[in-house]
Amino acid sequence: MKVSVPKGTRDFSPTEMVKRNFIFKTIREVFEKYGYQPIETPAMENIETLTGKYGDEGDKLIFRILNSGNFLSDFREEKILHDISNIDKIDASDTFARLDFNKPEQYLSRISEKALRYDLTVPFARYVVQHQNEITFPFKRYQIQPVWRADKPQKGRYREFYQCDADVIGSNSLLNEVEIVQMIDEVLTKLKINATIKINNRKILQGIADFFKITNFAEFVTILDKADKMGAKFVKEELAAKNILHHPEVEIFGTLFFESDQKELKSAVDKNKMNLLKVWNEKSESETGKTGIEEIEAVFNLVRTFKLQSSTFELDLTLARGLNYYTGAIFEVKANDVQIGSICGGGRYDDLTGIFGLPNVSGVGISFGIDRIFDVMNELNLFEKLNLSASATKVLLAHFGEAERNYCVGVAAQLRSAEINTEIYPDITKKISKQFDYANKKQIPFVIVIGGDEMKTGELALKNMASGEQTKIKVDSIISQLK
Amino acid sequence: MKVSVPKGTRDFSPTEMVKRNFIFKTIREVFEKYGYQPIETPAMENIETLTGKYGDEGDKLIFRILNSGNFLSDFREEKILHDISNIDKIDASDTFARLDFNKPEQYLSRISEKALRYDLTVPFARYVVQHQNEITFPFKRYQIQPVWRADKPQKGRYREFYQCDADVIGSNSLLNEVEIVQMIDEVLTKLKINATIKINNRKILQGIADFFKITNFAEFVTILDKADKMGAKFVKEELAAKNILHHPEVEIFGTLFFESDQKELKSAVDKNKMNLLKVWNEKSESETGKTGIEEIEAVFNLVRTFKLQSSTFELDLTLARGLNYYTGAIFEVKANDVQIGSICGGGRYDDLTGIFGLPNVSGVGISFGIDRIFDVMNELNLFEKLNLSASATKVLLAHFGEAERNYCVGVAAQLRSAEINTEIYPDITKKISKQFDYANKKQIPFVIVIGGDEMKTGELALKNMASGEQTKIKVDSIISQLK
Repeated sequence: MKVSVPKGTRDFSPTEMVKRNFIFKTIREVFEKYGYQPIETPAMENIETLTGKYGDEGDKLIFRILNSGNFLSDFREEKILHDISNIDKIDASDTFARLDFNKPEQYLSRISEKALRYDLTVPFARYVVQHQNEITFPFKRYQIQPVWRADKPQKGRYREFYQCDADVIGSNSLLNEVEIVQMIDEVLTKLKINATIKINNRKILQGIADFFKITNFAEFVTILDKADKMGAKFVKEELAAKNILHHPEVEIFGTLFFESDQKELKSAVDKNKMNLLKVWNEKSESETGKTGIEEIEAVFNLVRTFKLQSSTFELDLTLARGLNYYTGAIFEVKANDVQIGSICGGGRYDDLTGIFGLPNVSGVGISFGIDRIFDVMNELNLFEKLNLSASATKVLLAHFGEAERNYCVGVAAQLRSAEINTEIYPDITKKISKQFDYANKKQIPFVIVIGGDEMKTGELALKNMASGEQTKIKVDSIISQLK
Repeated sequence: MKVSVPKGTRDFSPTEMVKRNFIFKTIREVFEKYGYQPIETPAMENIETLTGKYGDEGDKLIFRILNSGNFLSDFREEKILHDISNIDKIDASDTFARLDFNKPEQYLSRISEKALRYDLTVPFARYVVQHQNEITFPFKRYQIQPVWRADKPQKGRYREFYQCDADVIGSNSLLNEVEIVQMIDEVLTKLKINATIKINNRKILQGIADFFKITNFAEFVTILDKADKMGAKFVKEELAAKNILHHPEVEIFGTLFFESDQKELKSAVDKNKMNLLKVWNEKSESETGKTGIEEIEAVFNLVRTFKLQSSTFELDLTLARGLNYYTGAIFEVKANDVQIGSICGGGRYDDLTGIFGLPNVSGVGISFGIDRIFDVMNELNLFEKLNLSASATKVLLAHFGEAERNYCVGVAAQLRSAEINTEIYPDITKKISKQFDYANKKQIPFVIVIGGDEMKTGELALKNMASGEQTKIKVDSIISQLK
């Protein structure tokens, strides 16, 4: 029998859990520091809740769940098996007509009505609409749960992975964008990751599209989104190939967008002079573009009133983000010292809940990618610097036999009632050296050995496993030393 | 469009999350206090890992996952759709033969190779076998994750629910059983639930079966397991109906098991006199029964060396537990003050990992049922007594307009750098009364109102929302007051 996990999924050992839990805890504490509250939604959603939200490519990656039990009985009830087996003897046309076999999607929806969530954003939108009467708006929620995607597994890409999302919904205020920048900076500072937080605004991109008289904005954004991975040349070629921009406009766009202006714009923003971008925008007479510039200015003005702890914050006009529901600010965060995709991303959406029947509620959110953050921290040896303890156990009680082991029960009770995490080596047949091996492998920092003398005097030998130092002291002193 | 979650699943609001997280945290801290370390396994397992482990009834309740994407293309590739649509024109017998439509299980295993985990025990056994070379034995692990069962949803029974498991594997020592009793007592004491921890031993039940010359032990246990729910009369009738015990033995069994002896045995155990049970056992000359009695005695002797904090610990001979893999001690825990099923259960298994190719490794474990514990605590108003804060936010900064709101950014930065969870009301168009409403609904304990005066003097009005008291102080003093 094959003993393994499905491809693209992983077990997490205690050592890995300590590191992952540190990341989760850091993110959770920062989210709570800014007033975000936790919610959880079910792993499975009704299939209609998910399909049609992630584009055709995304839809294909949704894991569907079979209607349990019923699937086989449906098969039997529908007489499919019987009819197919007897195809030469009976007229089965009724059965086949009823099955809608020429529309596989319909058949599929009959045997599978649920699916595993693909992200936390769509379930959140569903949650907001479903619970709108119980919610206090603006609703600041965070959610840390796994999601599932039937993607081709590869390095750093899994079929089950955690997302850590924070969203505020029901507020237009750009202060939310500013606080998102602060939260990202605070999380990454605590994790000791040097990062660049990039911001752009979909409305500015719309202004640029208006300037070039581009009508298919969604496709324009999709192509722009590839700039980071594929380069400027690819983007220009794609824009031309897809008939979005022709020569010579595409050349002008390329120069303007990727070369001269980009740098000038960055410094323009840094200097609180958006003149260049404004001039450009005025040419296009784009109202949306104008609003986008104002929004970016407002965010930068507020961010400038405090100092980010360790991150760089910059405008990146080439930032586009793949998802269609973004309508305002968009964010992406890169680690400075490791070559890896973005470790956090998000943006503002003006109508995410509209698909579920609650239109015109604006929100903005971000999502931390825990797996990439883990990889970055591993590669930079940051976990070592954080001095995380692999074991929550503080003391192991080792012993020479049954009477000694039973004596340990009382000692352990005293230590534990002082909230000191304590283990008694359970078996009485193992040599002391084996018990020390156990403490070493589990990285337990202290060992107390109980023998006949200790039982008589109550003076216990406490060994510091790191220094090798050994002292004879009473339980009370051990407690005050280890607390 | 239907906005709902699949039946048997639930959303958890921030208010519910605070309560649930308190339970999780309590359980986790106690597990760690006794040296258990966290692991996590994937939500989905290969189907072979799960099937055949939970009995026929259990197997039917496993949620299967469709091979994503491939399912439809399989359909097309197999020409099913084409062939069925053209059934009157072509000979499709090949296609149907290949599909094995007369063996639905085979067809099912071709379109679905993964399933959602049904419990945490089987994935744990798989984990131990798969990672046996990295593990330090005895391996004390805990695992807090959701499981999924396609059970008929009803009050207190869900299709997605969390289990909180602790198991130690690779140790025969009965100290593990003793520490499990301690852990249950400590968790429930911290949650303020008065409970009775019931213990029995499968070997004692085997001794009883030997005494009555019962050969089908598994079925005997399955029927006994229903005593609690269905009563003694039902058990006796079932034993007779299923040909396990005939008259007059079944009457003798009933009297012995449910009436006189049961009470005497309890007090016998309490008095450290197992004479009655021993006499009974000697009559059967059952070696297994004898070992069972010794094990129970050893556990009670050790438990008697300390005082349980709040729970009652007792032998319950009618305790059987449904699962077949138990071979020694079995546990079940009932809340004393609420009529509800068991809130925690477990036991010792001598060969759980054998099914995955690692035989003869003994382990013992327990599982807390978080949902029932939540229900018990709700019914007894225990959450109120625990004084849990619904909001992690300590202070809301309210304001009269944009300049004031922007001034808040600096104040918030100071409070947050002192690790005080702070919110700024984001929107600048809402009246102060609306902002106070927000604080009230979110149960934020303090509000600071920023107006023109405050910006000039730095003397901020701090309002205690519970007492209504308001004081004018500087940020520094607020920090020292709220920390």
